[in-house]
Amino acid sequence: MKIERINPAQHWSQIVIHGDVVYLVGTTADDTSQDVKGQTRQVLSTIDQLLARAGTDKTKLLTAQIWLRDINDWSKMNEIWDAWIAPGNAPTRATVEAKLARPDLLVEIMVQAAK
Amino acid sequence: MKIERINPAQHWSQIVIHGDVVYLVGTTADDTSQDVKGQTRQVLSTIDQLLARAGTDKTKLLTAQIWLRDINDWSKMNEIWDAWIAPGNAPTRATVEAKLARPDLLVEIMVQAAK
Amino acid sequence: MKIERINPAQHWSQIVIHGDVVYLVGTTADDTSQDVKGQTRQVLSTIDQLLARAGTDKTKLLTAQIWLRDINDWSKMNEIWDAWIAPGNAPTRATVEAKLARPDLLVEIMVQAAK
Repeated sequence: MKIERINPAQHWSQIVIHGDVVYLVGTTADDTSQDVKGQTRQVLSTIDQLLARAGTDKTKLLTAQIWLRDINDWSKMNEIWDAWIAPGNAPTRATVEAKLARPDLLVEIMVQAAK
Repeated sequence: MKIERINPAQHWSQIVIHGDVVYLVGTTADDTSQDVKGQTRQVLSTIDQLLARAGTDKTKLLTAQIWLRDINDWSKMNEIWDAWIAPGNAPTRATVEAKLARPDLLVEIMVQAAK
Repeated sequence: MKIERINPAQHWSQIVIHGDVVYLVGTTADDTSQDVKGQTRQVLSTIDQLLARAGTDKTKLLTAQIWLRDINDWSKMNEIWDAWIAPGNAPTRATVEAKLARPDLLVEIMVQAAK
C-alpha cells in the first residue's frame, strides 16, 4: 500500500498517508503568547488545514491524543474542542498532562483521520 | 472505507471502527475509591465490554497505551494486566507516568484492536 | 485480516502485524549507564532490528511517539534521531516528557510502520 508524505522534514513529516489512513504530526500553537484557549484554537485551525491538505476533514477523525502542560486546563481546552468537533463525529481520545518541547507550549494535539 | 462511531458524544466517541481497525477511547475507572489494582480491573472490564460492542475481543488487541498517575504502580497494574491478557495475544504497549483528567484517576488505558 | 505476533510475552508483544501495518512495542535502552544520546542510539538500533524482523525498515515509518524523562534532552535526542531518519521518509511524531518504567530510562520510542 502506498505511503505519501506531505512536508517531510528531518525531525518529522507533517502528514503521512497510508492507504486511507491519515496521520498528522503532533501540532502546537505558533503564537504562544496566547492562553490555552487561544493555543487550542490555533492548533485546531492548523489541524483543519493539514486535514484539507491530506484530502480529508474533521468529520473523519478516528483518534486523538491531547497533551496539556497543566491538566487543570482540561475544561478550557475542552470548551474550544467541543465547539470544533463536528457533532456526532468525535474521534476516540485520551488527554493527559505532559511537559512539551518548550515551556510556552500549553497544548499539543495529534490526530489520525480516515481519508 | 466506512467509519462507524459507537456512543459518539461531544468530547469523544467511545468506539470508532474504520475498516477492520477498532479504536477505543482512553478508559478510566468509575469507582475511584479503589486502588490502582481495583481501578485497572475496572478499566479492563470496560475495555472488554467496549470490544464486545465493536464485535471483537481481547485476543485481537493490536496496541495499547497505559498512563499511570504514579509510575511506581507499574508492578501492581501489571499484575492485573497480565492476568487479563489472553496468553500469546498481548498487544504492543507503552506505559508512562502522567497526571490524568482528575487526581483520583490512577490509571488510563487506550487500545486499538482488529475487528 | 490476519494478525501476526512476534515475540509475544505476558506484558506485551514486541511486534504486532495487522494487514500491512506494523506496530512495535515502546522501546527502551538495555544499557542505561549511557546518557540520552547513547540510549537513543540503542533504541533506534533495536527499532531497526524489530522492523527487519517484521519485514520492513525505517523508510516506511508512519508515526512515532517519543517520551523523554527530561524534556530538556529534546535537542540531544533529536541529534541522534535526525541522523537516523532516512531523508524524506520521516514519520509524523509527538515528543513529550514522562517518567518511564524505571528512573534510569531516559527515552522511550514507539513507532508504527507500513510493511
